[in-house]
Amino acid sequence: MRLSDTGELGLLHELQRRGLARGIENDAAELRDGLVVTQDALVEGVHFRLDWTSWRDLGYKAAAVNLSDLAASGAEPEALLVTLAAPPQLLLESAVELYEGLAEHGVPIVGGDTTSSERVSIVVTALGRSDRVPGRAGARSGDVLVVTGPLGASAAGFVALRDGIDSPLALQHRRPPIRLAEGARLARIAHAMLDLSDGLAADSTHVAARSGCRLELELERVPIAGGVVEVAERAGEDVWWLACGFGEDYELLAALPADAAGSTGFPVVGRCVEGSGVELLLAGEPRQLAGWDHFLQAPE
Amino acid sequence: MRLSDTGELGLLHELQRRGLARGIENDAAELRDGLVVTQDALVEGVHFRLDWTSWRDLGYKAAAVNLSDLAASGAEPEALLVTLAAPPQLLLESAVELYEGLAEHGVPIVGGDTTSSERVSIVVTALGRSDRVPGRAGARSGDVLVVTGPLGASAAGFVALRDGIDSPLALQHRRPPIRLAEGARLARIAHAMLDLSDGLAADSTHVAARSGCRLELELERVPIAGGVVEVAERAGEDVWWLACGFGEDYELLAALPADAAGSTGFPVVGRCVEGSGVELLLAGEPRQLAGWDHFLQAPE
Repeated sequence: MRLSDTGELGLLHELQRRGLARGIENDAAELRDGLVVTQDALVEGVHFRLDWTSWRDLGYKAAAVNLSDLAASGAEPEALLVTLAAPPQLLLESAVELYEGLAEHGVPIVGGDTTSSERVSIVVTALGRSDRVPGRAGARSGDVLVVTGPLGASAAGFVALRDGIDSPLALQHRRPPIRLAEGARLARIAHAMLDLSDGLAADSTHVAARSGCRLELELERVPIAGGVVEVAERAGEDVWWLACGFGEDYELLAALPADAAGSTGFPVVGRCVEGSGVELLLAGEPRQLAGWDHFLQAPE
Repeated sequence: MRLSDTGELGLLHELQRRGLARGIENDAAELRDGLVVTQDALVEGVHFRLDWTSWRDLGYKAAAVNLSDLAASGAEPEALLVTLAAPPQLLLESAVELYEGLAEHGVPIVGGDTTSSERVSIVVTALGRSDRVPGRAGARSGDVLVVTGPLGASAAGFVALRDGIDSPLALQHRRPPIRLAEGARLARIAHAMLDLSDGLAADSTHVAARSGCRLELELERVPIAGGVVEVAERAGEDVWWLACGFGEDYELLAALPADAAGSTGFPVVGRCVEGSGVELLLAGEPRQLAGWDHFLQAPE
């Protein structure tokens, strides 16, 4: 059995089953004193291409994907640790630009490591503090599901870069918004919350599995970012794959008590019911979308 | 200017000069509430060879190099985060063995990431708490320098593996001891402390530069691990390079008040005097050793 057979989640489940690790699939781990910590990697050729991104944007994004996990935990960021693996022939100027992008979020970089490597990879650890981490396990039947913003911009930006389509969404792929303030606000009332790094479809399955309920998503109600439909049409891509399958939007999905959802002002995209799994409905009809698994498949 | 010109330290100094990062060269960063955090990477082909290590030993070592940084901070370990980048064709069994090695230290793995990559790399973040972090800047003239154990075993083990010399020291290279208890004890009284990951010669220069004093090391007094001299002779290597230049011993070096050093029971290897830099003395004669810099050179 190889990682290409088990996938990323298969490996994580095996590690948890053996008591070797816990919570690797979570957005962030909660330790004593409200300390929240998370770690994510960006690898050249897997998560980014050097000809599609500037060094500064790459740094921005490497920090962003981790800060987004803190946002999903309702945490205020406190520090970053950064490990850069890069070829020795990398220009000092490029490395400095990378750290400029990392520092752009205003969270101090207090440590890390540098090492040589054939390909560039960046591993960031983000530390923060949260009064209340909703986690993924607390959603219950009757909750409504909200998202903090429109989806699909990052996916459409990726497709635009891939196909040479001129679109301002390319910027969204490289510099996604991070919902720290929204996360802190929603964390006070959410039964469950995570960021949509893997896409609404795949990330919903995590909430359903951990919470022991069924998530029904009504695709008509999912807000689509401006320009996504156009890119989908020009590229011949499924707009629902871009909005709900690709991920990397870094908006938050929260399961809220039904009476509290309205006052948040965020769009409702579905609800929790008794049962298990996730149902995607489009005009009342079930709709299937593949998730993203780094060991199983590259993005389309 | 490329990283091969500036070296690892050159990049870090440039980042600090620009206010983009701080303390990346430190063993660990100290945050609020005595929280100490550190992050180090092991990269295939740079820090390890898969034909020289078992997956379990590799996991052990990836955790060890980080726990050693906590030891140098006098910290008690609390949690690890682990990011594994590996080719999709990696056997699940091998990945599980790697995490078994990581978990062997008894510090819970609470999060991290997994991703595909052409070559294996492992980035570990270790979190702990310390009542007092000595740091590198507090050594003063009159202090004596102690090490927590004999040096050179890891280097000799590396050379034995490289040259096919049969030596039990190969195990030391793969499974270095971690001085957590010693670090916690010394942290109460040390003016400065670090672990000898880069070797006594190079690591002493960090203390000298940060503390604004001169370190005199008497090589005759440096304890050499059993078997090192024999491997040096068989391999034609300089025994002082193995003991003081190669690093990866993970013993601690501490600058202590002269009146307190004796009661620790650790061997004295030198002293701090007025001035700057590091002087290595062998039978009263100065002795030069090259340091190790990942961007500048591979180990001999």
